[in-house]
Amino acid sequence: MKITNYKDVLPIVMDNEKIKNVTGRIMIGKENNAKNFCMRLFEMGPSGYTPKHVHDWEHEVFVHSGCGEVFIKDTFYPLEEGSAVFIPPNIEHQFRNTSEKPFIFVCLIPSGAPEL
Amino acid sequence: MKITNYKDVLPIVMDNEKIKNVTGRIMIGKENNAKNFCMRLFEMGPSGYTPKHVHDWEHEVFVHSGCGEVFIKDTFYPLEEGSAVFIPPNIEHQFRNTSEKPFIFVCLIPSGAPEL
Repeated sequence: MKITNYKDVLPIVMDNEKIKNVTGRIMIGKENNAKNFCMRLFEMGPSGYTPKHVHDWEHEVFVHSGCGEVFIKDTFYPLEEGSAVFIPPNIEHQFRNTSEKPFIFVCLIPSGAPEL
Repeated sequence: MKITNYKDVLPIVMDNEKIKNVTGRIMIGKENNAKNFCMRLFEMGPSGYTPKHVHDWEHEVFVHSGCGEVFIKDTFYPLEEGSAVFIPPNIEHQFRNTSEKPFIFVCLIPSGAPEL
């Protein structure tokens, strides 16, 4: 078992030419013997974004706070607190913050995919 | 793909002698062709609780708002906004609200388990 709070998990900072002003935390994963899927939490600062990218595993996302947009295939869709997003495998996608407040969401992936 | 907000998903009300003042929503599941795991959202009103129960699949939980407690094996642990919980298979557990505000969390399960 594991009980934690994301505020107590050391964030991994991601900020380079591809990904901007993003931190990632592995909340539940293989270290906890979670055999089927992995929970990560992402926090984007103002103007933060992930790269447009594609891979052969899905995402299940729940927006905890803030607001942003998700690009899927060819369109940006607005997201806010309480939004959920399913991105099937092999579809190009991107997340970005659209406000000055942190945009915070959990993003779950199946086991076997890179945890972060 | 699917984009929704839990506020737009019709809640299934659960309130009987075993489960008290709880609603459940399937956010992402087999209807969306999610092959590996399923996201549900639970909202507990004041004094709400799930039964103490056990099953052979795990839970990955993220607390969106409110506060409550999770019973695991033989102990209650406090939960608040931003908490994450991993409950391995075959361990007795229960959730309950400990405040007058709604206690809202997502709870993910592997495919094959009952979605709600």
